[in-house]
Amino acid sequence: MFSDRFDQLVQALRILPSVGPKSAQRMALHLMMKNRDGAVQLAHALHEAANYIHACQVCHSLTEHDICDICQSKERNAQLLCVVESPADVLAIEQSGSFNGRYHVLGGHLSPLDGIGPDEIGIPHLLQRLAEEPIEEVILATNATVEGQATAHYLQEAAKHLAVRMTRIAQGVPQGGELEYVDSHTLSQAVHNRMQMK
Amino acid sequence: MFSDRFDQLVQALRILPSVGPKSAQRMALHLMMKNRDGAVQLAHALHEAANYIHACQVCHSLTEHDICDICQSKERNAQLLCVVESPADVLAIEQSGSFNGRYHVLGGHLSPLDGIGPDEIGIPHLLQRLAEEPIEEVILATNATVEGQATAHYLQEAAKHLAVRMTRIAQGVPQGGELEYVDSHTLSQAVHNRMQMK
Repeated sequence: MFSDRFDQLVQALRILPSVGPKSAQRMALHLMMKNRDGAVQLAHALHEAANYIHACQVCHSLTEHDICDICQSKERNAQLLCVVESPADVLAIEQSGSFNGRYHVLGGHLSPLDGIGPDEIGIPHLLQRLAEEPIEEVILATNATVEGQATAHYLQEAAKHLAVRMTRIAQGVPQGGELEYVDSHTLSQAVHNRMQMK
Repeated sequence: MFSDRFDQLVQALRILPSVGPKSAQRMALHLMMKNRDGAVQLAHALHEAANYIHACQVCHSLTEHDICDICQSKERNAQLLCVVESPADVLAIEQSGSFNGRYHVLGGHLSPLDGIGPDEIGIPHLLQRLAEEPIEEVILATNATVEGQATAHYLQEAAKHLAVRMTRIAQGVPQGGELEYVDSHTLSQAVHNRMQMK
């Protein structure tokens, strides 16, 4: 509108998730009128991140080094491996503070219709880790979606011959969930997987 | 979390309006996992915009040149000047397609408590334009807020000695507005400013 470069900035901002034309325009105006230093800093941060952040060679999470901090850490329990679909899931579990083992990021889930089979999500590499590392338990923390469940089941079968305990994160009623509003499939899972009161 | 550069990117994204820590994290993950090219393009667009976009010498709107496209255009009515608070208002009026004159961007409104007087929003420069250019009508399109109203009234007084017609954008019930839900001050304005049916 004001100039080609302004329009290009609005267009470029639209690649951000859930940013539509109106928000992108508001963001561009905000940056140009109120925070040019911020715009330059953001440009620098984007550039640095795009150049230096890549997948960890061991777990496929994000890192600036060959091997990520979690894989390198001596503090983490090397016997415990948590398999997730994406680095976002690593963040979510880390922020829950409930896990002290290491991770393996598949980078997706099995989806035969989209041509995504075991090789595409690096299952051979995961099985190799299970064979070579002193892993005793694998927590399958793929999403509780149809594809995530299928991926967990596939992994369980694929690792059957290894002396590794396979577990799946619990499914049930979420914290603070009122039964009235919980979907019936979740509720039926929660009844089926009921636990002894301690 | 994953690395310093990732954290810096999340931090830098938070300068965008209405982007909190969770959204910034989601944006950073999206860029790193799904759209690195987009991240590089965005960095480039930000850099270009911050370096080349500045205020028009005539109207103070945004441009890449000395004088913006609207001020330069021979198609626009040079007798009509619309005074607004910010370049965002120029965009809004342009997108409404209701105006074919030129603009003058104040860059704010009078706010004596914050130390913003006539000089800070360039009113002397506006009066100089009114004296030098062949302007016949000034449409005061500052916001319909207390400060916007005060600024419009100040401008009306300040330009009284010039042979220029001063008008104010209409205030009333917005299109599609149901009277039941319109605030009483707007409604009282709408009744007071009622117009002859044609």
